[in-house]
Amino acid sequence: MDKKKQIAELIQPISDDLLSGAAEIALKAIFIYQTVMNLEPGADVATLRADLSETARALVECQPAMAPLFHLSNKVLFAAQQASNPAELRKSCQNALDEFERSLCESAAKIAEFVYDLMPPGEMVFAYSFSSTVVSCLLHARAKGRYFRVACSESRPSWEGRKLSTILASGGIEVIHTFDSAMGIVLPTCSIAFMGCDCVGTPGLVNKVGSLLLALSCREMGIPLYALCGTDKFVTDERLFEFENHQRPGNEVWDEPPKGVQVLNRQFELIPTKLLTGLVTEAGILKEQDFSKYLSKMPVHEALRLEPAGF
Amino acid sequence: MDKKKQIAELIQPISDDLLSGAAEIALKAIFIYQTVMNLEPGADVATLRADLSETARALVECQPAMAPLFHLSNKVLFAAQQASNPAELRKSCQNALDEFERSLCESAAKIAEFVYDLMPPGEMVFAYSFSSTVVSCLLHARAKGRYFRVACSESRPSWEGRKLSTILASGGIEVIHTFDSAMGIVLPTCSIAFMGCDCVGTPGLVNKVGSLLLALSCREMGIPLYALCGTDKFVTDERLFEFENHQRPGNEVWDEPPKGVQVLNRQFELIPTKLLTGLVTEAGILKEQDFSKYLSKMPVHEALRLEPAGF
Repeated sequence: MDKKKQIAELIQPISDDLLSGAAEIALKAIFIYQTVMNLEPGADVATLRADLSETARALVECQPAMAPLFHLSNKVLFAAQQASNPAELRKSCQNALDEFERSLCESAAKIAEFVYDLMPPGEMVFAYSFSSTVVSCLLHARAKGRYFRVACSESRPSWEGRKLSTILASGGIEVIHTFDSAMGIVLPTCSIAFMGCDCVGTPGLVNKVGSLLLALSCREMGIPLYALCGTDKFVTDERLFEFENHQRPGNEVWDEPPKGVQVLNRQFELIPTKLLTGLVTEAGILKEQDFSKYLSKMPVHEALRLEPAGF
Repeated sequence: MDKKKQIAELIQPISDDLLSGAAEIALKAIFIYQTVMNLEPGADVATLRADLSETARALVECQPAMAPLFHLSNKVLFAAQQASNPAELRKSCQNALDEFERSLCESAAKIAEFVYDLMPPGEMVFAYSFSSTVVSCLLHARAKGRYFRVACSESRPSWEGRKLSTILASGGIEVIHTFDSAMGIVLPTCSIAFMGCDCVGTPGLVNKVGSLLLALSCREMGIPLYALCGTDKFVTDERLFEFENHQRPGNEVWDEPPKGVQVLNRQFELIPTKLLTGLVTEAGILKEQDFSKYLSKMPVHEALRLEPAGF
């Protein structure tokens, strides 16, 4: 099989993955990079770099809203660039992958501690869509002895709310599950709401469609809403709006719509920062005014640079 | 078969009907009353009254949010009360049914004219859930030569948004269909939004769950939101909150939830009047301050009186 095709096949499951959060997807991408580096044992440095660039571009393009996928890919490409022979390249890339994974896990642990302090004992908590960070924080709080119930909604069309409910229930958390438009019915029974996020920039957060309705409802009902994510979710504003290019097939929403009905299946939307109570990161609970210092100033590898609009 | 059972069987389809709007359900109930009056040709007046009371109570109880069902039933019971023999009772009830049907149709036609004047030509219109009044207004506007597109969402868990899309498309209206939580994505492309309503009282409107999220989004985005309904939707405040007793089986939302997950399936919610731009009725476009004069002051037949709370 030709290598381009092999890489495309490795990436397909990430492209098809509608259920995992951004951090979870990044962990899966680490494994893909390891596989790609070792696809051709005798490859020279130029070939390895080309393979990694191909992988990076395809990964970032298939899930353009997911910031950690971009940062991971960017780090791998810079690691590959500095190496002068295949062994050095593999070692340097492996270090970048290990470092990224370690930092993802450390961030998650720190965020979980901040969230534990925010959790009101004995209350109902709302959680939206599926975020591995939100899940690990809730399970951590439960394991640390905090008792609470979680209300969540199904997250059409991919039902990742069912995945969330199932995991939380199997972790001993009582779950109230409903459909998405019934948020307005369950939120008044909740004293705090959490969501994950795919990327953050100056104008706000990008997260699963429905997050904006959640945020508007929380503001109306006076319920604090926190987004949980590592500072690896910060991206420049031009990259933030890449999510707008992401449209899924309509038949995931309605398999056989009648003639004259066009089915729209967008996955992500922007939630203005002013609607958030705070962004819980490994560096603490950030407010809008703190964002600027975290907004990514890191160099972007040429393989991942965005083409200016209009080209 | 015993009569109580026959009546229950006649009413079952109304109880199971998750797809029809309140006006549509009232039309179906007219047919049920006609059938019940003629179930037992030799019945005396007392038996006929008892059968109609049984039917009225069961109808109102099975769809407690639907005001026209209450008003229709109330009119039939008062008509039955005045009659002194079976023939007179049947005639008097049939008159009440005819009058109600005529007034439903006349209202719909007047509302459609008001809506036609509100419709901005060439724009996108948002329509939520399924209301026969909204459908007839949109089809009327299209037939009268107004060109516009309609955006709508699926209305989980009963998918009545699919019914709406199908009917509008078959009437030559171009439809953009998406899932409920993607309202926030399509609303910015709309210049007006319409919804039906099941009942109206001083605190607001009762309509399909999701209407509150629609109303909050419309206010945030500056999109005028109109509820379309006849003044037969006005009810006293105590009756307005009857919808809160209406809970559907959880398995309509998730057929086999895992242990530890409780599935909530509520159908209706209250939308505060202040979130509406106006209520389009046969008597014109009403604002909050106009409601009091339409709030039902009609006598309630004893068979339909609500028990005071605590009894």
